[in-house]
Amino acid sequence: MGIKLEQFKAERRRLNDLVLSTENTHIKRFFTLDNAVYSKGAIPVKYKEMLGLVASMVLRCDDCIAYHVDRCFEEKANKEEMDELMSIALVVGGSITIPHVRRAYDLWDELAKDQADKSV
Amino acid sequence: MGIKLEQFKAERRRLNDLVLSTENTHIKRFFTLDNAVYSKGAIPVKYKEMLGLVASMVLRCDDCIAYHVDRCFEEKANKEEMDELMSIALVVGGSITIPHVRRAYDLWDELAKDQADKSV
Amino acid sequence: MGIKLEQFKAERRRLNDLVLSTENTHIKRFFTLDNAVYSKGAIPVKYKEMLGLVASMVLRCDDCIAYHVDRCFEEKANKEEMDELMSIALVVGGSITIPHVRRAYDLWDELAKDQADKSV
Amino acid sequence: MGIKLEQFKAERRRLNDLVLSTENTHIKRFFTLDNAVYSKGAIPVKYKEMLGLVASMVLRCDDCIAYHVDRCFEEKANKEEMDELMSIALVVGGSITIPHVRRAYDLWDELAKDQADKSV
Amino acid sequence: MGIKLEQFKAERRRLNDLVLSTENTHIKRFFTLDNAVYSKGAIPVKYKEMLGLVASMVLRCDDCIAYHVDRCFEEKANKEEMDELMSIALVVGGSITIPHVRRAYDLWDELAKDQADKSV
Amino acid sequence: MGIKLEQFKAERRRLNDLVLSTENTHIKRFFTLDNAVYSKGAIPVKYKEMLGLVASMVLRCDDCIAYHVDRCFEEKANKEEMDELMSIALVVGGSITIPHVRRAYDLWDELAKDQADKSV
Repeated sequence: MGIKLEQFKAERRRLNDLVLSTENTHIKRFFTLDNAVYSKGAIPVKYKEMLGLVASMVLRCDDCIAYHVDRCFEEKANKEEMDELMSIALVVGGSITIPHVRRAYDLWDELAKDQADKSV
Repeated sequence: MGIKLEQFKAERRRLNDLVLSTENTHIKRFFTLDNAVYSKGAIPVKYKEMLGLVASMVLRCDDCIAYHVDRCFEEKANKEEMDELMSIALVVGGSITIPHVRRAYDLWDELAKDQADKSV
Repeated sequence: MGIKLEQFKAERRRLNDLVLSTENTHIKRFFTLDNAVYSKGAIPVKYKEMLGLVASMVLRCDDCIAYHVDRCFEEKANKEEMDELMSIALVVGGSITIPHVRRAYDLWDELAKDQADKSV
Repeated sequence: MGIKLEQFKAERRRLNDLVLSTENTHIKRFFTLDNAVYSKGAIPVKYKEMLGLVASMVLRCDDCIAYHVDRCFEEKANKEEMDELMSIALVVGGSITIPHVRRAYDLWDELAKDQADKSV
Repeated sequence: MGIKLEQFKAERRRLNDLVLSTENTHIKRFFTLDNAVYSKGAIPVKYKEMLGLVASMVLRCDDCIAYHVDRCFEEKANKEEMDELMSIALVVGGSITIPHVRRAYDLWDELAKDQADKSV
Repeated sequence: MGIKLEQFKAERRRLNDLVLSTENTHIKRFFTLDNAVYSKGAIPVKYKEMLGLVASMVLRCDDCIAYHVDRCFEEKANKEEMDELMSIALVVGGSITIPHVRRAYDLWDELAKDQADKSV
């Protein structure tokens, strides 16, 4: 594992750099704001990332889902919490979200296996 | 206050009864499942309701928003948490969510005033 | 009944007339095409209206839903078929469609009662 | 006329004030950014408002549509331009946008009549 | 042909197995319900699959489209019916559905050629 | 460059031919209308393509975005105008559009480099 996620992250970084090389300040400010809303506050960071993930699930955006699944994993969300989040996304968003649920589970499985490998 | 929310709840109940008077078991099972996913589990109920709310915000469904704002209030989410949730919904879903943000704040304000009145 | 649906139809007619008073031929052609696709063909008209209804349900457009529920009723779709269509819309589109399912059932109920009254 | 639009604007102002009474800086910054992107730049303001309107049409947000129709009118967009914009919205977004096209034409008609009355 | 569709089906099966290895009963129940709504009832199975397909078209979900195009083909929908369904999806959902219309026709073409090859 | 865009265009042409080989006149008429709305009129063609692009951005359709980015470039929209259009798309559609903003900038960058190479 790691490889697919690393490629995704590298491409994401390359394109973010391209976008942010603009002189348009509105675009830069939006990107700053996009980071800021997930930072520490009254809601713990783990739950903020889960809010970002469920929103990405029902709006069916694979890149956004990959980003927030990875962040939820980093913030120590566990499999049971992921299952419950996914059940809410499924019920709110319907079967149209299933292809994204599948890919989210695939990534989670990779992250879990990767962690298990490292801890051996 | 109370009145507008009570009317919404009464109409919601009347129509849910009408829908559930069907003999179609699939529809009934969906409604059962819709309740079940927000029940107690690894994720505390308050955060589950917040997941339901942020999903409703970005999908821009006023009835769903009213329901989950009310439930978040019942589960003792505070104003600061609501603000943070709304900032995430705004950034993920964009300015197109603003009319719904406005109405969510209006309802929250009514719930807070109603509670303040009762506690006098 | 009848009254609410009649008001909806009258307002719809008034506004369609306003839109179609334009000299823009593209808009007129779109409206023509919009009627044409539901006309008689390989798929029976009743099922075409059901296709239009399920699409309107998952896209959550109340005016479109009211129009197609009325047309399905005219084309003699029965309650059992409506239930099955709604169960598909619910599962594909998720709980976010529930407010629209409620209003669709409300209209169907009015149409059925109205017909029952007339047949007395 | 004027009355309906004035009521919409007054309610919009009341709720914006309520939202912006928050201490959450992210929400305030989003609202600031939302104004800034339509300000003078390489694209003339009239066309920026038209970009905002077509985006609001295909995303089917009535409040956003009312706001941008009013702004396009203020920026001296003419009926022929409105027709062409609406034909693009209709073709890109499909018949599901028709209820919003209807209401946009209704508001435009009111604005035009109101202006004609004043110029007598 | 067959190959691309077979790969899609194999990956779909692998990931469904991964999702359904969860102990979360809500997710399992949703998947059960998702199958159940397309089963035999008042609406013939062929038309139920067509309802699923048109909903998937207007919601623009390629995996869902591939699944239901394949199922419609199995249920003996013919090309003329597919054309009519696609014309409704195009008009309701707009030009934004065109990339999905293209891919649906590509898959249908493959299924038809594959069947012709077998029948030689 | 050129290669990726050329492949996209060739595949697009192949599939459009397949779709338009249908005998269904409604589908053909929709495609004709889809071309017609961007043709010369009261709104200059460059701005019509920009309307098409911002609509495609907020509806998050990559194929539609690639088509309209290419057309905007052909119609001599400049980088500053693209930046302003993208800032509007970002603010209206939210962070969920960011993956599409990234890919739009990637294509624009390729078009600009390709043009620079040719002009040497």
